[in-house]
This record gives sequence, C-alpha cells and structure tokens, in this order.
Amino acid sequence: MTFSQRQAALRAEYAALLAQKNEPLTGGNGIYTKYTNPILTAAHTPLEWRYDFSEKDNPYLMQRIMINAVLNAGAIMFDGKFTVVARVEGADRKSFFAVAQSDNGIDGWCFWDEPITMPDGDNAPATNVYDMRLTRHEDGWIYGVFCVERHDDTKSFDTSAATAAAGIARTHDLIHWERLKDLKSASQQRNVVLHPEFVNSRYALYTRPQDGFIDTGKGGGIGWALIDDITNAEVKEETIIYGRQYHTVYEVKNGEGPAPLKTEHGWLHLAHGVRNTADGLRYVLYMYLTAPDDPTRLIAQPGGWFLIPEASEYVGDVMNVAFSNGWIEKEGKVYIYYASADTRLHVATTTIDQLLDYCLHTPQDGLTTSASVETIKRLVKKNKEQQK
Amino acid sequence: MTFSQRQAALRAEYAALLAQKNEPLTGGNGIYTKYTNPILTAAHTPLEWRYDFSEKDNPYLMQRIMINAVLNAGAIMFDGKFTVVARVEGADRKSFFAVAQSDNGIDGWCFWDEPITMPDGDNAPATNVYDMRLTRHEDGWIYGVFCVERHDDTKSFDTSAATAAAGIARTHDLIHWERLKDLKSASQQRNVVLHPEFVNSRYALYTRPQDGFIDTGKGGGIGWALIDDITNAEVKEETIIYGRQYHTVYEVKNGEGPAPLKTEHGWLHLAHGVRNTADGLRYVLYMYLTAPDDPTRLIAQPGGWFLIPEASEYVGDVMNVAFSNGWIEKEGKVYIYYASADTRLHVATTTIDQLLDYCLHTPQDGLTTSASVETIKRLVKKNKEQQK
Repeated sequence: MTFSQRQAALRAEYAALLAQKNEPLTGGNGIYTKYTNPILTAAHTPLEWRYDFSEKDNPYLMQRIMINAVLNAGAIMFDGKFTVVARVEGADRKSFFAVAQSDNGIDGWCFWDEPITMPDGDNAPATNVYDMRLTRHEDGWIYGVFCVERHDDTKSFDTSAATAAAGIARTHDLIHWERLKDLKSASQQRNVVLHPEFVNSRYALYTRPQDGFIDTGKGGGIGWALIDDITNAEVKEETIIYGRQYHTVYEVKNGEGPAPLKTEHGWLHLAHGVRNTADGLRYVLYMYLTAPDDPTRLIAQPGGWFLIPEASEYVGDVMNVAFSNGWIEKEGKVYIYYASADTRLHVATTTIDQLLDYCLHTPQDGLTTSASVETIKRLVKKNKEQQK
Repeated sequence: MTFSQRQAALRAEYAALLAQKNEPLTGGNGIYTKYTNPILTAAHTPLEWRYDFSEKDNPYLMQRIMINAVLNAGAIMFDGKFTVVARVEGADRKSFFAVAQSDNGIDGWCFWDEPITMPDGDNAPATNVYDMRLTRHEDGWIYGVFCVERHDDTKSFDTSAATAAAGIARTHDLIHWERLKDLKSASQQRNVVLHPEFVNSRYALYTRPQDGFIDTGKGGGIGWALIDDITNAEVKEETIIYGRQYHTVYEVKNGEGPAPLKTEHGWLHLAHGVRNTADGLRYVLYMYLTAPDDPTRLIAQPGGWFLIPEASEYVGDVMNVAFSNGWIEKEGKVYIYYASADTRLHVATTTIDQLLDYCLHTPQDGLTTSASVETIKRLVKKNKEQQK
C-alpha cells in the first residue's frame, strides 16, 4: 500500500469508529441503562494529535505521539450540545484536558481540534492535572476544579512522592481559561467540587481532606467548606458531611463526584467509594440525597453501591475502578459519564425521577450482616403478601 | 411496556438463566472437568430478594436491594440433593448465607426462598460472616464453621481495622441454626474447618492462626486442634500440619478448604495457597493426602497448584482468586465447588480414584528450579523408554 492508501485506510477506520452507534444494554437493574460501547477511548482522540501526516517526515505512517486513555470527564450542556472535558492521558503518563461533544449524549462524540491549554497562573507549575469537575455557577462563569499534582520535593530521593492540591480555573468558552490560585488548605485535597449556587453569599466547595497523597489517614470523608473569595480560595472551616465507615463500600476512601443536581426533593449527589481487597483497591459509585435548602444535610442514604465495573469494564490500566466526575441533566433525563478501569469513558442514562426514587426507596445500609438479611426478608415478605 | 409486561420479561429472563444447561469444557488437564457456566451468580438470587413487585411502591420496577456476588460455598448432600450454603454478598458489602440446591450438582441450581438467619447467640454481633465450611459430623449434627468479622475497636480511627474469629453453628434442617460460642483462640482465626469424625473422642478442627486480620505474620499454616467441648470451643494446643514455604504457591498464606474426604487410602484434602504478585495476592487451590488412621500425618504432597483461575475466571471483584470451601462425594464422583475472583461459584467434577491418583503420583515440589528440571527430565526419560 502507498502512503496515501494507508492514510485513507486509517482515516476510514477512524471515521467508522466515530460513526459507531451505541445501543442500550438489556438486563440491567432498572435504575439506569448502560450501553454497548464506551463513548470515548484513546482511539477517539484526533488522528492529527497522534500522526505526522507528512510522507517525507513519517514515511512508515507511525504514531508519533501515543495516547494511553480517555477517562474521568466533567460534563455540562454547552452551546446546545452534550459536552465533556475529559482527562486524556498520554503514553508519557501526563494527563491533560480536552473537550468533546455529542448531539445526543450517547454516541457521535467528537473531540475539538486541540486539547485545552491550562495556564499555571500564579501557581507553581503542575506536573499533572486531572479529574475536572465542571460547574456552571450562578455567578455566570463555568468553573473547572481539578487535581493538581506535583513532586513532593521534601522527599527528594523518593521519585513517587507527590502532593495533591485543588486547581481552580474559569471560562466562558471552554477554550480560554482564567487560572485562579490553587485552593489553600491545611491538608492535601483531591475530589474538590464547586457547588453551583452561592450559600450565604459565599462560594461552597465539596472537599476531601487527606493526610497524604494516597492515604486518607485519619482524615477523609466528603467535606464542605465556604469560601470568601474564589480568586484566592482558602479552606478555613471544613465540615465532614459524609464520612467513611467500616465495612461499607466507602470504608477506605470516598469523594464527591460531579456537582450535585438540584431537584424539588433535594440535591442528588453521585460519589465514589473505595474499599480494599486482596488484589488492591475497588472503586464503585454510590449516591446520596441532601435537603433542598441545605446541601450539607443528608436526607437519604441508599445502602451499598449504585454502579460498579461489570464485564469488560473491570479490565484496564487500574482494574476494578468505576469513577464519575460528570453528569448532565436535560429535560428530566440524566446522563452519567463514568470511566472504567481508568481507561475509557462510558455513559449510563436514567431520569431525575428514577434517581430520586432510588435514593428515597433503597434501604439504608444497616451496617451488619443481620440487618442486611432482615432487610431482604422484609422485602420477600412484602412480595409474598403482594401475590395474595 | 406496562409494569406487568416488564415484570413478565424480567421473570422470563430469570427463568431462562436458571434453566441454562452446563456443558463440560474440553481440553482440561484430565484430573477434573470444568464447565461452561458458573453455577451461581448474583443474577441467580431470587427476584423477590431484589425487586419490590408492588407497582404502587416500585413503579419503575427498579432493584431495591442489589446483590454483588455469590461465592465461597460449603457443600453437602441434603435430602437427596446437591446442596450448597453459599456466601452471598450484597451491594452494601455485607455477606450472609443462603441455601441453593440442584438435582445433578452441575446445573439447575435454585436458591431457597429466604437467606439464612444466623443468630449471634452469646457472641458479640457480627458485622460480616462468610465462607462457611459444612461438616456432617458423626455426632449427628450438621455443623457450619465460618468467619466472623467485627471492627477492631482498639483502632478506632482506622475504618478498615477488623478482627476475624471462627463462628460455629449447627443445624438439622439448614433453616434453624443453633449458634455456639465463637472459637476461643490466642490468635485471630479464619478458614477453620470441623473434621467429620471424633479423634480420641474429641472434636477436631483444622485452623489457620494469624497475627492480624490480613497478615498471617509469623503464624499461618494449616493447624490442628482438638476440642473438649464444641459448645464452648477453645484452641488449647495447636499443631501446624501443613506450613507455609518459600517460593511455593502457599508462600504467603494457606488454609484448609472444605472438610477432607475419607477414602481407603487416606484423607483427601483440598486447600488454598496464596502468593504475592506486583498486582496483589494470587489465590490457587492445592491438594494433599493424610493417613487413614491419622488425619494430621501427611502421606502425599503433590507439588504446585491443583486448580487456578482461567480465562474469564480471572476477572471479578478480587482478581486472580480461586477459592473452595465445599465439595461433595457421591458414589465415587467428586463435585468441587470453587469460586472465581470472589464473584461467582463454579463446579469442577472428578472422582475419588482420580484425586487419589493425582495425590499419589504427582511429583512433590522439590523447592528449587534444578529439582523441577530433574523431575521433568525423569519423566521425559520414562516416556522415551516407553516408546521403545
């Protein structure tokens, strides 16, 4: 094959991938619907990011820049389109952000021509950035809050020693980002999320304080902090609104997912929980509901996980991980963007009504095996009476 | 679709799953036969445990209680049927026990209407129970010995700190269980198994002493303890009958599987061994044979693993795990119930004659690469002479 034949084949293959339809999977739990294909993978990134199409400079038509994964994405409606700001990870392990859009939220996803240039602003340069939560705030800006990772130079001999902070940037067009000062906090922070409304005229953040880069230590839990000045954000007081708990799916770690969705019955929250196993950590998603007039007051805690890796979702760069930092509500339908195994991005669809029903009617975790058995037996009894 | 149409579809799908035939897999090792399908999964648990079938209370027909996995099962013949007491794990991570039966031991498995209510008796309430070994003891009772997990309150800040003890219960009908006192022991205990016969008029337990909840520490190995009073069981003297060993498949941990099977040539034991890898622990099954007149005296130690996770068995909540705590002997045939990746339960079939032949004629582990090479070369030489 000539160079141009190979190029044509490559472009045809890429076009076919982007045109692939996404069909709903049957046999689910009735709460949401998963789909046959991931919506974005490394193979969805533009060919121009990866290939040098000059025959003179790249006669073998080899990838010049390899992409490793497309995962954890913030999500909003933007210009009438379903829009994600995905974490794209290169073969070099460095993550960055890139915008992709779709007309229906389920398939037809297409990246913009270039990844986002995220300025460092007044902050020390970031080695890595990832897991942006997008919040369309009532102040009129679109905010991106994300994790910023840098080497911990106090441990100069340890090439793995890192620190995690929350980076904050804002935009109107998803292209030009005004980088604000990183969140000041007594502890390291990941999974920080901006609440979409002012609370007592202040900005409000969901936080996740932790002692070290990986360990939550004695800290952990989903926190809440009010911020006086978002351009110079500082955590002064931090309240834990959803703590960790022994022998739950959030025993070891938990953290807020995307910004919560406002409903007439309260704020719907999607979060991740982490437990340990003989084969490493297991990340699953769970939900909770807080009061309409107080986003920190729990009013429903459905027990157990809400969404887990299944089938081929288990396998990837980091096995056994389901993670979400983005969802979109449109006309009562909800599109949950979740990544599997830190490798690829999927969608699951449901409705506000179903999620409220799930939160309000799933039994709460009774925290012991006996309580779980009694809960099942009550349901069996109710079903028996129903049949009469 | 109307509610009743959706309900009918759900029930049809469930009935089809339960009616699925299980075909033997070809191309095995000749020692046992694996089958195409797992025998029990989360999807096999009764719909009445998971769905509220009242249209008024559950208009979207969503799962109200989600089940995560069905795994490690004790097994016996009961009322003429192949019977397992499986570990069922809910989405809330709490495990409990449930009975399922089959006419042929291979397919057609069906859970009883309700899970087992395991009383706490005089013991502190359990947070979690799992991995029941069933023993039909010559005293006339069916015993279940299982792991009981509770939070380690001496480490109040650590939400993962747990203690493991052996719970003991007995029954005649698998419905009503008399809970006895948890095993008293100087160390934490998991994988405790009741030997089916009296030894010097005393009950006998296979034990697995360990220093901590996960670590076996300096302890470990399969132990043996004689018990004066099963209603107040205490480990007074503990002998290690099968220790851990460097660079074997039981380097890090090992433990007795189900109660051993009595044969004219000795007691057939199925056990699990654990090694560490860069990606977490790997659990495999191995076998050994002890003397007919002394269940603690090793008479055959076939080298290496007997059964490992293969293909899709590798993948699940805890990758790379094969585990068994139940097998059934019927008319010389043996049905091994093993779980893969802490997610689903399978059967493998063989015979007493094959297992004895395996134990007596598989070369013992020589503990060095040179010994392994010599063992293979002896076999090659034998085969060459055979061809003459």
